[in-house]
Formats: sequence, structure tokens, C-alpha cells
Amino acid sequence: MVRVMELRDGRVELFEGSERVSPPPAGVVRWIDVGSPQAAHLELLRERFNFHPLTIEDCGHLDQRPKLEEYRDHLFLVTQGFAAKGDRVEELVLQELHTFLGERYMVTVHAEPIAALEDAWLRLAGEPKLLERGVDFVYYLVADGLVDDNFPILDRIADELDEIEDAVLSSPRRQDLHRIFELKRHLVAMRKVLSPQRDVLGLLVKRGDARIDERAAVYLRDVYDHLVRMNESIEANRDLLGNALDAYLTVVGQRTNEIMKYLTVMSAVFLPLSFVVGFYGQNFDNLPFVKDWVHSDALMWSMIATCLALPAGMMAWFKHKDWL
Amino acid sequence: MVRVMELRDGRVELFEGSERVSPPPAGVVRWIDVGSPQAAHLELLRERFNFHPLTIEDCGHLDQRPKLEEYRDHLFLVTQGFAAKGDRVEELVLQELHTFLGERYMVTVHAEPIAALEDAWLRLAGEPKLLERGVDFVYYLVADGLVDDNFPILDRIADELDEIEDAVLSSPRRQDLHRIFELKRHLVAMRKVLSPQRDVLGLLVKRGDARIDERAAVYLRDVYDHLVRMNESIEANRDLLGNALDAYLTVVGQRTNEIMKYLTVMSAVFLPLSFVVGFYGQNFDNLPFVKDWVHSDALMWSMIATCLALPAGMMAWFKHKDWL
Amino acid sequence: MVRVMELRDGRVELFEGSERVSPPPAGVVRWIDVGSPQAAHLELLRERFNFHPLTIEDCGHLDQRPKLEEYRDHLFLVTQGFAAKGDRVEELVLQELHTFLGERYMVTVHAEPIAALEDAWLRLAGEPKLLERGVDFVYYLVADGLVDDNFPILDRIADELDEIEDAVLSSPRRQDLHRIFELKRHLVAMRKVLSPQRDVLGLLVKRGDARIDERAAVYLRDVYDHLVRMNESIEANRDLLGNALDAYLTVVGQRTNEIMKYLTVMSAVFLPLSFVVGFYGQNFDNLPFVKDWVHSDALMWSMIATCLALPAGMMAWFKHKDWL
Amino acid sequence: MVRVMELRDGRVELFEGSERVSPPPAGVVRWIDVGSPQAAHLELLRERFNFHPLTIEDCGHLDQRPKLEEYRDHLFLVTQGFAAKGDRVEELVLQELHTFLGERYMVTVHAEPIAALEDAWLRLAGEPKLLERGVDFVYYLVADGLVDDNFPILDRIADELDEIEDAVLSSPRRQDLHRIFELKRHLVAMRKVLSPQRDVLGLLVKRGDARIDERAAVYLRDVYDHLVRMNESIEANRDLLGNALDAYLTVVGQRTNEIMKYLTVMSAVFLPLSFVVGFYGQNFDNLPFVKDWVHSDALMWSMIATCLALPAGMMAWFKHKDWL
Amino acid sequence: MVRVMELRDGRVELFEGSERVSPPPAGVVRWIDVGSPQAAHLELLRERFNFHPLTIEDCGHLDQRPKLEEYRDHLFLVTQGFAAKGDRVEELVLQELHTFLGERYMVTVHAEPIAALEDAWLRLAGEPKLLERGVDFVYYLVADGLVDDNFPILDRIADELDEIEDAVLSSPRRQDLHRIFELKRHLVAMRKVLSPQRDVLGLLVKRGDARIDERAAVYLRDVYDHLVRMNESIEANRDLLGNALDAYLTVVGQRTNEIMKYLTVMSAVFLPLSFVVGFYGQNFDNLPFVKDWVHSDALMWSMIATCLALPAGMMAWFKHKDWL
Repeated sequence: MVRVMELRDGRVELFEGSERVSPPPAGVVRWIDVGSPQAAHLELLRERFNFHPLTIEDCGHLDQRPKLEEYRDHLFLVTQGFAAKGDRVEELVLQELHTFLGERYMVTVHAEPIAALEDAWLRLAGEPKLLERGVDFVYYLVADGLVDDNFPILDRIADELDEIEDAVLSSPRRQDLHRIFELKRHLVAMRKVLSPQRDVLGLLVKRGDARIDERAAVYLRDVYDHLVRMNESIEANRDLLGNALDAYLTVVGQRTNEIMKYLTVMSAVFLPLSFVVGFYGQNFDNLPFVKDWVHSDALMWSMIATCLALPAGMMAWFKHKDWL
Repeated sequence: MVRVMELRDGRVELFEGSERVSPPPAGVVRWIDVGSPQAAHLELLRERFNFHPLTIEDCGHLDQRPKLEEYRDHLFLVTQGFAAKGDRVEELVLQELHTFLGERYMVTVHAEPIAALEDAWLRLAGEPKLLERGVDFVYYLVADGLVDDNFPILDRIADELDEIEDAVLSSPRRQDLHRIFELKRHLVAMRKVLSPQRDVLGLLVKRGDARIDERAAVYLRDVYDHLVRMNESIEANRDLLGNALDAYLTVVGQRTNEIMKYLTVMSAVFLPLSFVVGFYGQNFDNLPFVKDWVHSDALMWSMIATCLALPAGMMAWFKHKDWL
Repeated sequence: MVRVMELRDGRVELFEGSERVSPPPAGVVRWIDVGSPQAAHLELLRERFNFHPLTIEDCGHLDQRPKLEEYRDHLFLVTQGFAAKGDRVEELVLQELHTFLGERYMVTVHAEPIAALEDAWLRLAGEPKLLERGVDFVYYLVADGLVDDNFPILDRIADELDEIEDAVLSSPRRQDLHRIFELKRHLVAMRKVLSPQRDVLGLLVKRGDARIDERAAVYLRDVYDHLVRMNESIEANRDLLGNALDAYLTVVGQRTNEIMKYLTVMSAVFLPLSFVVGFYGQNFDNLPFVKDWVHSDALMWSMIATCLALPAGMMAWFKHKDWL
Repeated sequence: MVRVMELRDGRVELFEGSERVSPPPAGVVRWIDVGSPQAAHLELLRERFNFHPLTIEDCGHLDQRPKLEEYRDHLFLVTQGFAAKGDRVEELVLQELHTFLGERYMVTVHAEPIAALEDAWLRLAGEPKLLERGVDFVYYLVADGLVDDNFPILDRIADELDEIEDAVLSSPRRQDLHRIFELKRHLVAMRKVLSPQRDVLGLLVKRGDARIDERAAVYLRDVYDHLVRMNESIEANRDLLGNALDAYLTVVGQRTNEIMKYLTVMSAVFLPLSFVVGFYGQNFDNLPFVKDWVHSDALMWSMIATCLALPAGMMAWFKHKDWL
Repeated sequence: MVRVMELRDGRVELFEGSERVSPPPAGVVRWIDVGSPQAAHLELLRERFNFHPLTIEDCGHLDQRPKLEEYRDHLFLVTQGFAAKGDRVEELVLQELHTFLGERYMVTVHAEPIAALEDAWLRLAGEPKLLERGVDFVYYLVADGLVDDNFPILDRIADELDEIEDAVLSSPRRQDLHRIFELKRHLVAMRKVLSPQRDVLGLLVKRGDARIDERAAVYLRDVYDHLVRMNESIEANRDLLGNALDAYLTVVGQRTNEIMKYLTVMSAVFLPLSFVVGFYGQNFDNLPFVKDWVHSDALMWSMIATCLALPAGMMAWFKHKDWL
């Protein structure tokens, strides 16, 4: 799907179709948006704009990393961000936008519809003043939306991490473990995208390209700041994830230790007792202490006393060893 | 709440309300302090000072990271620090101050009252000489207080860490584990703020901005030094926290090992004994060793000897294996 | 085996043998490919091209690291990549290509046949236009193929890692452990090669060497981008491998914990029961509770009640301790 | 305590008291040493030398980090090192020296007596030639002594580490654990001081300050080299400490494993045996194998055979499983 | 031992003794080699060559780190490498060479004989042409030999690591643990030397010193490349060592887990059985199920059935829990 937004004599016009896919005439500003591009569209871009074959090839394979390439009369930008569905961060959807940024035109290519781009499109269609600020400002609007969509994801991950760590410290469950590793995988994926994304915007802001208007640069610096903050958030969250995992391991280790203590106490009490009753249960007629006391209560009471004294002594010793 | 401090003809005057919220006339130095800003206040700042819309937007959302932005006729600074309540570091409260630093004016915006700012306000109100050193010196006073409030927090964390490590090495308790992870979370939060804070002040000190007076730069370098020291403290504490956690794990592991030894010794002694008394307790009339010795003491004594020799042998073997 | 490809007057000619192993005459572009080089071949290169003795020595020992050396009239490049056999990444085969890149000639030396080089050879033999772009473009074709062969390997490793982590989290097996360490070894080997490889191409792209044509530089930047992506992939995969190993350890630890719980419950129930039946099984005629009740059902029922109540009480206590 | 060393007309003179605490007249070189400074001393320094209030404040709080501050006519240096008491590294004593280094004067401020400084003082008092080399050379003498005092500490730590690792690998004891964590704390403390100390000296050597004479710079580079080596030593020792801790954990884990094996073998042998003797000990008159063989040896022997065969079989199986 | 090699009029002459220990006259190239230097030798060097006292002091204490110091008319170089004895890497011997590199002379000082130096000496004594290339080329010959001696050590360590990891994964033994920590210590020691060694040679190659001839620089770059490769090898080996240790811990953990399973199964089967036979072994005449069936087979068979059904049920449950 190809659509074109044009600013001509202070008025914004919208077109569908590939007719106006070409560098704009003098005095005109054009934003050409190509969704789910077909080979024919890309060929058209190459012919009319004379874009480099490798960038055209990139647009056909939407699986690049964020980058900034400088050509004689335009910049080629790959911008990426994530979108998430639902309240829990179940699955991250990578959004990728390829942008050719000329002096008076911007060409955007993307496979799936991108919410941030749609928002910008609608907003610009209604306010010609925004488009008058130049295509670099338009790029800012789209990139800002694309980047800021990552904030709620990171916030949700941070919140979940807090919950998981608390849950793990009180009673670790197997599903917490699954969740920890899932979140870690998300963070690895996000860092892989947002770290080069930050570098690209840092490059864009710092180099003072003539194509980037001074005023737009201030705005892009804002996007850059957000990306720096996101990357710091990712690092902090990775740290806290490591915490949660350490907590899990430590708590499991300590519970094993506690269970072992209990098992040991049980065994220490009842193994000797079993021996005692086994000993007195011998079939011998003349056990040393039995011989003289047929029908004697003393023998019986001695055994019962042993059966009470033994566990009591054990318990005292365990208390002394600080095991209970 | 809006208040203004003005230095005019060597005298300091204080005003309340938004009347004097504007760039000062020639020869006047102004500090405008806006607490818990409302939309109207921010709009006023934008209009009268012509601040950039993005910075005004930042002031409305007090959740930025420390940063330094340079505009044509002023600097925009976000400064952050932590305050703690009580003697133990239970909860950290983030303090955030937004500052516009012009040549003869300083505008400070903050949501909650900041103790360091109040101190500076009172001190300046009483000493016109301090205000005469320029607004950059005033910024130093506030920033220095804000930053130095972090020292007692870090000291308390370090003290607690020492205690925890000692406690853990003698006898690890579950609550130590909770505390370790709590402190680690505090350190992650502090590093996230104080590390960019240090970079911002480093930038401020190194760039030789005309707006930063040479004499004030010396003072700001002092704040920068403190921030460097804090960040080193955080790193050292994180290291020691890792220590405490390792100690916890190792001590728990070793206690499990000791309990296991005890359990094994108990089992090794009493399991064979139970077998022995069970064996002699058989109902057979003609046990090989029993047959010839009806009423014999020899059989009984042999069993008792076994019951004594067996544990003694086991114990000797364990001693040999260095388990006791 | 020595073969030569020559572009003369817009036509491509192929030769076998070492006859044309020399710098090409004016107007001619030459690609000299030396497979499994013998001492005589290397001596020929040294004589005719006057290559540095150390680079000739390097060509004799194909076990270098990727590097770029600059000589007066040519560049010496060592390019490496991996090839894998089969669907699972069982064994990595290191492919090493030594290249002398002059203004109008390229000499490639390699021990084993390299698929990417064969592809480029066939493609160039059919399209004289490609050779007209210069030998730096030819080098791009070969290097691009050599480098891109690493992508499927990394993808397969990432896929396997996902599978292993899932498998480990549900039920860890010894063979998963073997596989984890095998993959880690592969990643260490790949990083050792691809990290300097990236640096070499970065150097090549950034230094604006006169020998590297502007147009070819754009293409080489593409190879450089791929290498950057690969290195990021390796880092991310190493991270995930650490995950998988942590998962393994944690799951094994937790299973030990669960088995311990079961063992403890079993012991806690049956050790006291054994004591109880042993106690009642004594041979005394006048056990306190037995004396008066010869043939009494009450005694028997009391024992049976104990045997039922004891485990029930234990179980309730374990439930309370959250062990079941 | 204040004392002054003066070089005048090739002779060295010593004075006590604060009389000569001032910049030296032309042709005179002065070293002013202030030990355990009182407020009056510091005030004197501020007045006579016009030192910056912040540096004076620093001298009052001897708890800074190593740093180098440049003022118009002097350098302000904070130099730190450690001293240890006794043969084992029980307690580290931080030594802190504040130095103002002018063209012809050096002012040193310290709280406790510093051995290295005393040595330099005595040496200089006896050799006027050394003082003639300038105050920067004097600073070298003091700093070199202060820094080199760290070497024996690091060597002792390294030696102890070797011992601990060996001890741990043969039989880990709780006190080794305590010692490991104590040494780690020492290393964290030393790194916190010696790492910025190295940076400060690196700065001093590299910046070619006019106040640092070319010849003295060669000597200071030597101190810098020592600091680099110390920092590498600290890193290597931290590495080895990590080793020792890993060794501890692994050996404890393996011992638990070995004890478990023993416990399992014991249980596996005697639990079945207890069952066997219990089974044969039933009160039934007509056990299937008993019925026909009243007084029969066969039954008894069958039981004894079982009691021998069962453990033998178990043992064979354990051998097969490689547990013994 | 002092010996001198001299190139005069195209002929190489060898001398023993300290007579010719001085800067060579015009047109002469000299290599002065001082083995196990005595104070007198070092004093001679200081006097005749006017070397800096600190470098002379360094030569007396052969325990420096690799470094490069630049003086007005010569370079001072400390070069280090390792030699190993035997096939297994039991003990590393540090080789240290101090070199003064002037325009037409090279002075080498070392405590022990160095094989690489002997080789170079013999080779140069036979080939005057090599000495004609200048002393920097001679330094290359010695440094190359010294550095390359590290390769076989690293290769052996890598081979051993492979073996250990395989051994550990199949059955971890205590001696593997010892070996792992021994190798780790070797790697820590090698990194401590070879990492600064690489930096020194990198400095030498990059700075384009006039004393380093362009042709020799190409050769030294080769040595630098080897050092870079060695350092990468060390890092990769450290990584793999971490692997081996992780493998050890994980395998031990899993074996403990397996033994625990076995113990638990044994206990779960025989503890209930012991209770059952104990229960039936009571002395009561009127057990509920016994009363009516004096001499009854039914009772006996019920017990035997229980004794068979109980373990069978347990086993089925364990299979269900995936423990067997």
C-alpha cells in the first residue's frame, strides 16, 4: 500500500497509489509511505530516487539492525522499537521502519502497520503547520512515537520483577523460574535493538548534518535522551533479574537446608529409639537387667525413661548447635 | 507555590506569587522558585522566558534523568539526589530539581519541598554577599546540598553491609537475605541516578561555559568530586554485597554439609545396630550361635559387644575420613 | 592449484597454471587464485610481486587471525569465516582466505576450497561487467559470501538454545548439559574469529584508502554491518547460554529440594511408626497399659489409633509449613 | 605540630613552629610540614598562601580521595597509601597526605605521622643536594615511599591467597571462608584508593606541567609504573580470590556429594536387611517356608544367605554405577 | 658474564669481558649482552652510557613489568615471556630481558640464560648480513623468539582444557578440580605479563620512532600481532576454564541429585515395609485380622501381598513423577 502526503502552498493533500512516488518539485514537501512493500514498489523507489541497490535490498528484508547511512543527497535510517500485547509482557513484536530522509521528502517503508506512524500521519494530515517544519521534524514525530512505545513495556517488566523477587523470597515456585528466564530473554532482545538505536540517534544528533534542521535536532535529542534512559533501565532490570535468580537459588538452598535439619532431627531422635525398643525386645531370658526382675516394673520404667531422656537430650544438643 | 528572591542594589528582597516571574531588568539578579508547579505556572515560564516547549513539558513530568541541555541564552539542568527517612535505609525518596540557569536569573522547579533548597534559600536571604557571586554560585549551593545528602545514605548502607556480612558468616538468617536484596535494590536505584548525575556535572565543569563563572567552576568541581566518590562507593558496596550473598550461599552450603555429616553418622551407627538387634530377636530356636548356649550369657554378651564395637569402629573410620 | 582470471578489452579469460602469475600489464585486471599452495607457488609470488617475506610466510601457515596490513602498493588481508556441516551445529570448519589487493590485481591464497570463493569465481566468469568494477569489488563479493555463511550457523545455535532452555526448564537431562558446553565452545571460537574480523573491515571502511574505490566502500560497509550484527548475536547468545546453564543448575537444585521433601515426609511418618510398633512389641508381660487388659481390645485399638493419628498429625504440620 | 625545612645558600636549616609558614623569599626553597593540623594552622595557610577555601576545608577532613587540582600558582595533591601492622594483613591503616606544590615551596598536611614522610625528612635534612633538585623531587621522594609501602601488603595477600587456595582444595574450613572475605574486603578498599591514585599520577606525568621539572617527571613516571603494577596485582588477586571461593564452594559441594553416597550406601544395605530380619521375626506359626521345617537349619541358613547376598549385590551395583 | 658482538667493516667479531662495554665508535654496530649482572657491570653501564639511575636500578631487580621508556638518545625496554618445562604445563618460568636500544648499539641485561637470546646470538654470529639491518632488527629477532615461546604453552593449556572438560562432564574427579585451578593460576600469571607486553609493542609499532627503522617496524608489527593473538587466546581459555568449573559444579550437583533419588526410593520402599512387618509382629493375641484365623494362611498371605504391593505402588508413583 502506497500513500503520499504533500504540502503545497500551505495546504496538505493526501494521495493513494504510486503515481506521486518521486522527488517532489520545488516548493513541495512530500512524505511517501510504503506499507508491506512489493518488489514493484521498491523498484520504483530505486528508479525514481536513484537509491543505492543495497538500501533497496534492505527494504525487501525487514530484519536489519538500527543504522544510519549517509548518501550524497539523503540519509538512510533503520529505526526499530517494540510493541507488546496485553497487560503482561507475553510477546514482544519488533517494529521496523526504514526511512529515506532527503531535503524535502521522506520515504518510509515498513512491513506491518506501525501505530506510531499512523498517529503521526493523522496528526500531520490535520495540521499543515507541523509539516511546514520540514521532514526532519516529521521523522522526529514518528521516531518519538516508535521509541516511547517501549517505555510501558520496560515499566511492566520492572513491576513484574519486583513482584517476582518478593514472591521468590517468601516462597519460590517453578513458574517464577520460567517467568524470570522469559523476562531475561525479553531484555536481551530489547537491548540488542535499543542499544544500537541509541547510538544511531546519538550520531544523528551530534554530527550536525545540514539535512537535520537545528530546531529538529533539539527534538531528536529528546528521543536520544529517552533511549539513553531506556538502556539504563534495561541494565538496571538485568541487574535486578540477576538478583531474582540469585534469590531463587539461595532460598531453595536454604529450604533444602531447613528440610535437611528436620530430617536429621527426626532420624536422630527415632533411630536410637528404635534401637532401644529393639534391644529390649530380644528373646533372651536372661538379659542382664532382666534376669533378677521377673515382672519387675523397674525394667519397664527404665526403658520408658530411656525413650524419654534420649530425644530430650538430642533436642537440647540441637538447640545448643542452633539447629532449631 | 511561587516565590522570588531578588538582589537589587546590594539588598535581598523576597516576594511571593507569580508577579515577578520574568527575566530580571538590568542590574538585578533573580532566583525564582516554583514548588509543586501547576499548568499555569509552567505556561507563564514558557511565555515570559521563552523556554523550549520540551523543557516545559519535562517540568510537568518530574521523572527525568539528570541531564544538561544548552540553549541560546540559558542552560537547562535536571539534578537529582536521594533523601532517606529514619536510621536504617528503609525507603529512598528521589528528589528532583529542574533548573533554568540564565546569566542573571535562576528558575528552579520541583514537586516536593527539597531540604537542601530550603537551606540555601534561608542562607541567601540572610547574606546578600552570597547572591552577589552570581546565580551559578547559587546553583552550586543547592546542588552541593542535594548531592551531599546522599553521603549519609551510602555510609549507612556500608555500615549495614559490614554487619550483615559478619552476621551471615556466623549464622545466616532468612531476614539477612531479605535485607541483602533490599540494599542491592537501593544501590541499583542510586547508581541509576548518581552515575548520570556525575556525568552531567563533569560536563558542566569541563566545558568552560561562559555562563559558568570561573570561581563557581572550582566549587562545582568539588560537587563533581563528591559524585565521583559516591559512584566509587556504590561500586565498592555492590562488590561487598556480592560478597555477602556469596558468604550466605557458602555458609548455607557448608551447614547443609555439616548436617548431612551428622545425619550420616547417626544412620551409620544405628542402622547396623537395628539390624543386629533384629537379627538376634528372631524367633528361631536354633540360631547357630544360640543352639548350644541355652540361657548362655555368652550369646547375650556377644550381642552387647557387637552393639558397642560397631559404633566405635564407625566413629574411628569417620575420624579417619576427617568427618568429625 | 593455480588459476587466473583476466579482464582484457572487456572480455574475461580464464587460465590454469602459474604462467600468468605476475602483476598485470596496463589496462588488464587480474585475479590470481592459489589453492593448497606449494612452496614453489609462494616463492613465485614473492619474486614476481615482491611481497613481504612475512606475508609469504603467513600464506604458508594458514592459522592466522583476521588482519589488515598495508604495504606501499598493496594491502594484505586475512579473512576468516566458518562453515558448518549438517543441520545441527556439530563441527565448525574454519575457512581462511589470504588476499593481496593491488590496484589492478587480486591474489587469493587458501588451503581448502572455499564455497564463497567458487561462487564468486563462477559469477565473475559469466559477467565481465562485475570485474570492470575493480578488484576491490571482487574482494567484496568473496568476503561477503565468506562472512554471510556464518549467519545460518548463528541462527541454528540460537534456535537450539531456545529448545535447550525450554527442555531444561521442564526436565534437565545430562545430554543438555553436554550440548550447552558444546555450543558455548562454538561461540567462544566464533567470537575469537569474528570480533577481529569486524575490526579489520571497520578499519578498511573507515580509512578511505585510495585502493578502495568509493563505490566498493559502500558495499564493504554492508559486510561490516553484517559482522557487527553477528558479534551482537554472539554476545546475546552467550548471554542466553548463561541463562540455560543457570536454569539447569536451578532446576536441578529445586528437584533435589523436592526429593528431599519427599524423603523427609516419608521418614517423618514411618520412623515414629516403627518406634510405636516396636514399643508395643516388647516382651514384657506387664507393660503399663497392658497389665490390666489381658486380651483387651482397648490396647490394640489405642495402638492402631496412634498409628493413624501420628502420620495425620505430621501431614497437617507439613501442610502448615508449606512443604507439600 | 608544624616544622619547616629550608634550603638557603646551599645549606639546609630546620625550624619548629609556625613562624616561617609563608611563601619563601626569592632564592629559598621551603618544605612546610603540618602534622595533626589544628584550625589555627589551616587558617594560617589560607591567609599567608591564599589557598582556596575548599582545599583548606579538605585538609580539615582527612577523608578525601586521591586527586589533583590545579590552581594559578600551585598544585593541590591528595596522595594516599596503606600501611599494615604485623605479618598477617589484619588491618589496613589508610595514610593520607595533602600537598600544596608551589614553585619553590611544598606544604604537606597529614593527621597521623607517615613513615615515608619521616624517612624523606631525615634523608633531606642530611643531603642538601636532594633539596636542590626542587620541591617536585621532594614530592617524588615522599610519594614514592608512600606508594611503595603498599607492595609488601599486596605480596602478603598474594602469599596468603596461595596458602588458602591450597588449604581449601585439600580440606575447607570455616575460618578459611572468613579469611577469604576479609582479604576481599582489603582488596576492595585498596582498589578504591590505588586506582584513583594511579590516575592522578598518570595525569601528573602526562600533562607536562611547568611546575613539574622534566627530571622529576622521569621519577614520578616510576611511581606511576609502580601504581599500574599494583592495580594489576589487585585485579589478579581478586581473580585468585574468586578462585579460592569457587574452590571452597566446589569442594564443599563435592564433600556433600561424597557423604551422600556413603549415607545412601549405608541405607541401601541396612534398610533391606532390617526388613528381612523383621519378616523372619513374625509371630506366625506357619510362615510358608517355616511350616515344614520346624527346627530346620535350612530356613535359618536361607535367612543368613539373604543377609549376606543382599549387601553384596548392592555393593556390586554401586561399583557398576561408579559410586564407590 | 659479559660478551660483545661487533659489526665492523662487514665482519662480525665476538668478545668476552667488559672491555668493549661502551658506545661504539662511528661505523660500528654493537650488541652488548650482560648475563646475571653484578653491581660492577651495572655501574659500568651507567658510567659509559650515561643511562638513567632508575633504569640501572631496574636492571638490578629483575621483577619489573613490560614497559617502554623513552630517553633522549635511547629506548629502555623490558620484555617478558614464559618458558615451560616438560609436556604438561607444570611450572611457568618467567623470562625477563632488559634492553637499551640506541642508534647503533643494543645492551641486553638478563639474570638467567634465555634460549631465544642464545638462538639469536648464534644466528647473528654466523650471518653478518642480519646485523647490518640494524640493532632494531636484532631486537626483533630476540623479542620474536621470546614471545613465540609462549605459543606452545598456550596450546598445551588449551589442549588440557579440552581434556579436562570432557573428563569432568563424564565423571568429575577431585584432581580435575586441582588442575582447573592450577591452569587458571597460570592464565592469570600469563595475562599479567602478556597484556602489558602487547601494549608496549603496540606503542613501539605505532609511534614511528626514528630509532625504529621502517623495515624493522614491519617485523615488530608481526610480534605485536602474535601478542594480540596470545591475549585473545588467554581470554578464550579463561572463558573455557570457567566452563570447565561450571561443568564440574553442575555435574556434581546433578550426581548428588541422582544419589538422593536413589536414597529416597530405597527409603520410600523399605521404611513402610519395616512398619508393616513390625505391625504384624506384635505380641497381641487378638489382632483384629488375626482373631478368627488362628493358623490362618489368609493373614499371612495378606501380609506378603502388602509387602509386594507397597513397593510396586511406590515404584509406579516414582515412574509417574519421572524420578527413575
